[in-house]
Order: sequence, then C-alpha cells, then structure tokens
Amino acid sequence: MAAPEIDKLVTLLGKLPGLGPRSARRAALDLLKRRETLLLPLADAMARAAAEVRRCSICGNLDARDPCGVCTDERRDPSVLCVVEQVADLWAMERAGAFRGRYHVLGGTLSALDGVGPDELGIPRLAARIADGGITEVVMALPATVDGQTTAHYIADRLADAAPDTGITRLAHGMPVGGALDYMDDGTIQAALKARRPV
Amino acid sequence: MAAPEIDKLVTLLGKLPGLGPRSARRAALDLLKRRETLLLPLADAMARAAAEVRRCSICGNLDARDPCGVCTDERRDPSVLCVVEQVADLWAMERAGAFRGRYHVLGGTLSALDGVGPDELGIPRLAARIADGGITEVVMALPATVDGQTTAHYIADRLADAAPDTGITRLAHGMPVGGALDYMDDGTIQAALKARRPV
Ligand SMILES: [Zn+2]
Ligand SMILES: [Zn+2]
Repeated sequence: MAAPEIDKLVTLLGKLPGLGPRSARRAALDLLKRRETLLLPLADAMARAAAEVRRCSICGNLDARDPCGVCTDERRDPSVLCVVEQVADLWAMERAGAFRGRYHVLGGTLSALDGVGPDELGIPRLAARIADGGITEVVMALPATVDGQTTAHYIADRLADAAPDTGITRLAHGMPVGGALDYMDDGTIQAALKARRPV
Repeated sequence: MAAPEIDKLVTLLGKLPGLGPRSARRAALDLLKRRETLLLPLADAMARAAAEVRRCSICGNLDARDPCGVCTDERRDPSVLCVVEQVADLWAMERAGAFRGRYHVLGGTLSALDGVGPDELGIPRLAARIADGGITEVVMALPATVDGQTTAHYIADRLADAAPDTGITRLAHGMPVGGALDYMDDGTIQAALKARRPV
C-alpha cells in the first residue's frame, strides 16, 4: 500500500521490543515528519553505533573501546566484581550509583530448556578472571528468578572450588521476586546492594 | 555512563512516540545485539526513507514519488475524494480496502487553541482541487472529536459555496466518539464508510 521504502521502515521498527505494528506505523510517520530533527540524526546515530560499539573482551560491557570505560577506570575498585545478567543491568547498577567496583556481564542465565550452559555464558572466562587474583569479593546481582538464582548458585559453587579465598555475596532480597534489575528503582538497588549477604 | 555513541542512540530512540526512557534503553541494547539483522538494516532503511520519501503535492500522502501512487493509479475513481486528517488515517482506510477513490490529507484539524487555521491545513488547495471539476463526492473521514467535526463542517460550508454541485458526505457514526481512525478495526471502517451520510 505505502511506498516500499516506508513499508520496510515500518517492518524493521516493528522488530524493536515494545513496538507492535501500530506503534511501528506511528513511529515511521513521526520519523518522516521530523526528517531533519529525528530521522536523519537517528539513522546517523545507528550507523555510528554499529561501527563503533563493541563488546568489552574483559567484562562483556558495550562501549566504543575495548577494554571498556569501566574496566579502564583507575578510580574504580578492581577487587570487587559484580556479576550481572545483561548490559541493561550494568546500566541500572551504574544509575543507582552505589557500586564502584567492576563488572562481569554473563549475557543470559543458565537454562536447560533453552540449551544455555556455562560455556555460553562465559563462566569459564569469569572463573579464570578470578583465578588471576586480586578479586576479594564477587557480588551476584542476577535476577530473582529461578534461572537467575540457579545461575548464581552454580557460579558460587564453581568459584568456591576455583578461588576459595574470594568472598561471594548476593544482592539482598528486597528485589521483588520475579523482578528484573532493570525495572527496579535506584533506592531499591541501593538498599539491596547495601544489605548484600554471603551466598 | 555508557559510550556517547550509545547515549545518543538512547536519547534519539526515546523521542519516538511510545518509547519512554526505559524502552529506549532496551531498544538500543536490542539493536546492538542484533547488529547485522536489525541495527544496520534499520539505519539503512531510515537513510533511504529520508532520501526518497516526500509529500505528494496533490493529496499530501507520503510516497517515493510525487504525485503519489494513489493519485496516479488509473484504476481508482477520480470522482470521489476522501478527506483525512493524517497519512496514518489514509493507511487505515487503505487497509480496510473499502474505498477506491482518492484522498486529501489535511495534516491536522482546525484548532483555535493551537493556532491552526484553514491555510495551515491547505484547505484553499483542497477547494481549488474541487473547483477544477470532476469530483462529484467528497467523503469526510475526520476524527469524531470536537476539532475533527468542526473542521468537517468548516470544509463542508466552504465547499457548498465554491462547488455547490459536489456532494459532501461523512463517515457514518459508528466510530467511537473521541476515537481516531487509525485505532479502528477494518470492519468498523468498512461499516462507517458504507453508511456514510450527507453532511
Ligand atoms: Zn569492560
Ligand atoms: Zn497523492
């Protein structure tokens, strides 16, 4: 019905999380109305992000440099490591401003159903990172879901063998059960971090 | 916190209708995860749409050519003109598949509050188009809001003077009051069109 250029834009926008077919149509029309102020700048920002942003080979964060800004920030405490599921969770921790150590982004949780095992999550890489020494505490900030807590316990067991001197803690419960870190407000994250307990 | 390339992407995505700050962050991360299958194709589709898509100088539709595909389609009935508020409404009419005439997209409705008058909506251009002859019916498909119906009556009065032989109809009520065309299902649009009445 519409020009193929518009149809393609609507189809691709509809693949974004949170945009159904109707919101994708509205977004496409809005973009075409705001050609100079939104459509062209967004096209450019996407092309730049695609060209520049990569995954940090140390922690799994996304940044324009590798190692990322968090891994290379000398003011951060290298002895505390926070394990998160996704980069969105790392961002949520950073917004809360309560953590000054470094991160390890798993990229998912263990799931027998989806065939996600320790290797897919880079858990051997995490174990090696801790075996290198210098890390005194690992804070588990995984989701309060069955898969999240199973993953936290698996990692805790594995690290207890590989690096018995490293303390392993988890965010205090206070996270709503079944909730994701990225949906929690800053205060909840701060309180949960403050009341973290040994696993 | 994140790389400036990511921050910019999140900020611009957050300007799309329907995407708040959190969904913009999730969309940005999703795009970065699907670099080859979504981020690069979408950047390209946006650049193409920005370069190719323009407003039809006859009807106000958006298309890669001017006049647009609807205005140049010889199989469509040039004697019936449907007046809609937005291109989204033209798309909704086309999806319903019940109208085979041509369109006039106003781009808004009259609004004293927002300073939108007849000139801003191209109503003189619409009157001239009808004065050129060949149009026997104008179907008003404007929203069932106060502004929409005020606009419909204003246009009807103006056309009654300028082109007294042109019939003016409106979509039958059946549209939910206060509802926008773009939110109606196909059946409602079809029924409303079928039961259209003289203004
Ligand atoms: Zn890093
Ligand atoms: Zn046209």
